[in-house]
Amino acid sequence: MSESVERLLARRKRLLGPNVPTFYNDPVHIVKAVGVWLWDADGRKYLDCYNNVPHVGHCNPRVVEAIYRQASTLNTHTRYVHEGVLDYIERLTATMHDGLTTAVMTCTGSEANDIALRMAESVTGKRGIIATDSTYHGNTALVSQLSRSNEPKVGFGLEQYFRHVEAPDSYRIADPDGTLFASAVAEKIAELEQTPQGFAALIVCPYFLNESFPSQVEGWLKPAAKLVRQAGGLLICDEVQSGFGRIGSHFWAYERQAVSPDIVVLGKPMANGHPVGAVVSSADIMAMFRNSFRYFNTFGGNPVSCAAAMAVLDELQEQQMMANAKVVGDYAFKRLQILQKKYECIGDVRGSGLVFGAEMVLDRNKKDPASELTDVVINAMRHRGIILSKLGRYKNTLKIRPPMPFSFENADLLFDTLDEVLSEKL
Amino acid sequence: MSESVERLLARRKRLLGPNVPTFYNDPVHIVKAVGVWLWDADGRKYLDCYNNVPHVGHCNPRVVEAIYRQASTLNTHTRYVHEGVLDYIERLTATMHDGLTTAVMTCTGSEANDIALRMAESVTGKRGIIATDSTYHGNTALVSQLSRSNEPKVGFGLEQYFRHVEAPDSYRIADPDGTLFASAVAEKIAELEQTPQGFAALIVCPYFLNESFPSQVEGWLKPAAKLVRQAGGLLICDEVQSGFGRIGSHFWAYERQAVSPDIVVLGKPMANGHPVGAVVSSADIMAMFRNSFRYFNTFGGNPVSCAAAMAVLDELQEQQMMANAKVVGDYAFKRLQILQKKYECIGDVRGSGLVFGAEMVLDRNKKDPASELTDVVINAMRHRGIILSKLGRYKNTLKIRPPMPFSFENADLLFDTLDEVLSEKL
Repeated sequence: MSESVERLLARRKRLLGPNVPTFYNDPVHIVKAVGVWLWDADGRKYLDCYNNVPHVGHCNPRVVEAIYRQASTLNTHTRYVHEGVLDYIERLTATMHDGLTTAVMTCTGSEANDIALRMAESVTGKRGIIATDSTYHGNTALVSQLSRSNEPKVGFGLEQYFRHVEAPDSYRIADPDGTLFASAVAEKIAELEQTPQGFAALIVCPYFLNESFPSQVEGWLKPAAKLVRQAGGLLICDEVQSGFGRIGSHFWAYERQAVSPDIVVLGKPMANGHPVGAVVSSADIMAMFRNSFRYFNTFGGNPVSCAAAMAVLDELQEQQMMANAKVVGDYAFKRLQILQKKYECIGDVRGSGLVFGAEMVLDRNKKDPASELTDVVINAMRHRGIILSKLGRYKNTLKIRPPMPFSFENADLLFDTLDEVLSEKL
Repeated sequence: MSESVERLLARRKRLLGPNVPTFYNDPVHIVKAVGVWLWDADGRKYLDCYNNVPHVGHCNPRVVEAIYRQASTLNTHTRYVHEGVLDYIERLTATMHDGLTTAVMTCTGSEANDIALRMAESVTGKRGIIATDSTYHGNTALVSQLSRSNEPKVGFGLEQYFRHVEAPDSYRIADPDGTLFASAVAEKIAELEQTPQGFAALIVCPYFLNESFPSQVEGWLKPAAKLVRQAGGLLICDEVQSGFGRIGSHFWAYERQAVSPDIVVLGKPMANGHPVGAVVSSADIMAMFRNSFRYFNTFGGNPVSCAAAMAVLDELQEQQMMANAKVVGDYAFKRLQILQKKYECIGDVRGSGLVFGAEMVLDRNKKDPASELTDVVINAMRHRGIILSKLGRYKNTLKIRPPMPFSFENADLLFDTLDEVLSEKL
């Protein structure tokens, strides 16, 4: 670890407190970024195979110019009328199914999920929420309790409203058409209906990204969605990670699941790092929420945020980034499969578009997770200038989720390096 | 109302849903702003006497340049180490009392208050929170229940943790040294201690801004703060509106109250409209929170947000804006007092620095609120090119809270126009 990083870590401890997460054993001190490239303080260059927030590329000039232009002109709030927020919501909802026509703009995905759950409460009059046991939907007091990794002792007793179903896991749990998952959801619905809170909603990432993106057939979520509707509940799709063309085949992952969510939640990549999130719903649901709850967000939907978000949509469209995600993703997937043939430790290869990865195991038959090896690999990759991470309930899946302008060449560099690292470490 | 505003309002209804607040009977369509000036779509100029978010002036060039420069260089998150967030927190906490040395950066004041309440929970092991009955601390499921105007039917039952004391009101309730307020707090502490949740914290804006900024002697809050400490609770000061030099006499309103808050919450003006908030606390409190709750905020503390926030501190200091708030505020106050002599309807004049206003009454002896007249006045002012608002439990107090570069000339224009409007409407 360099002396300057050590000094920064000491300052972090003093100024941010303990237990503030960093990546890697030897954290990276990034000072500059362009497109898919990062530079550290010593001038070393890294290929970014991880960050989804700079969706259309780090420091994308169109987004930066849009922010600069609007910040130089006007930045107020929605208590004055302004075209920015209206033009953006019109354009955004045009990419979604017919029922989704209105939105609340927020500053983060956490704020958006916090609203989504209250929408479900105001529509159903109930409070019971179902999620998977490996999910993450944000950091407010309410939505943080959706994550089982957070201890409920801090959280105002909100854990009482949440029930968890086992996360889908295509590598270990046979559930080819989603009926097993649906029956687990049905069980939790029944359980909640026995309590005073009742059943209000199922919230999922429709690509199950935090659940390490299991391989699923199109429409896999349909049986669960059907049961949710039959029980009078809402389907909330959290597209914070999976949306905006990332999966290559569809602009929204819920389309691949062939479901029509009642509420869609957006965040991270929406404005390329400018703090923007949103909740999209039908006009009816929005009216029920807005009439039962006086919601105003000072920064939400401000002209600068909307200009940044609009520039992301422009850039995605003009640079045909979803099509790029598809072809480069297909190529990357094939290269990962080739590595899988070479290395026994690559138990499974999953993903599509520009979100993919490999599950590392000690033994292909037993499928015992190679969690330690995965950690060694990502730290070794970092030292060879490749930024990626790991996830999953055993932390043994390589998480590769680069900015959307990721190229065939970038994929080659990634997998050539991974090949080197694996051949060295095994 | 112009045709274009009518069209925008129709689009708002369709895209944002019902019940989305706007200012004025005839909402303003602002398209451009510089310093303390706003322009609408028809080219009409308005003096902004209301907006505190653009703290160092609308489209402040130093802030805009800082955003542009950093957004062109790097915008990542705190999982990589970076000086930006550290330099900012160091500089920010240097303006506060010795005990406050650490911070969590967020995107909004709402997120920050949501954390502050969980800090109180993690430190005390209790959940009962006391606030005033006219307050507002944000829009998450948790903190929105602090506002009594929100119906508890949507809010996951969180209202059970909150108790409200009557807001201070220097015009109607005699409490010269804060002992009456303190005894009301003591009563609620005792009430909470009888419940399973116990007493965790008192949260107040130390200038009681939403309570229509009552006139108070320095140290007025001390008796209440003392009782809170004796009961083992925390004092949370929400400086979202009152901080950053606005009150002229002190950089933080808690200094004027001569109290040492355990937690300070920041938001709105912090980065001049860029979505930034923060929670500042002692190292001990931060450690207790961070060790009992795994908190990460993707956008919180990102390099661009920190650059914008730092530029605000630079601008405040170099342009000596707090000193300006003091002298212009004193002058404005005197001009309001002169109007009070002329117009019977101005029952009380309050405030300091660049947050001041007048309480409008039907009769000075009875002090019956002139709520309707106040509404007429602010709408008439809007039509004469002056942007201000009203607040208070009877919505009868003019709320004047302009950007910090507000000048003597600006104050003259404001009060000359107010004089005209009052002489016409009465």
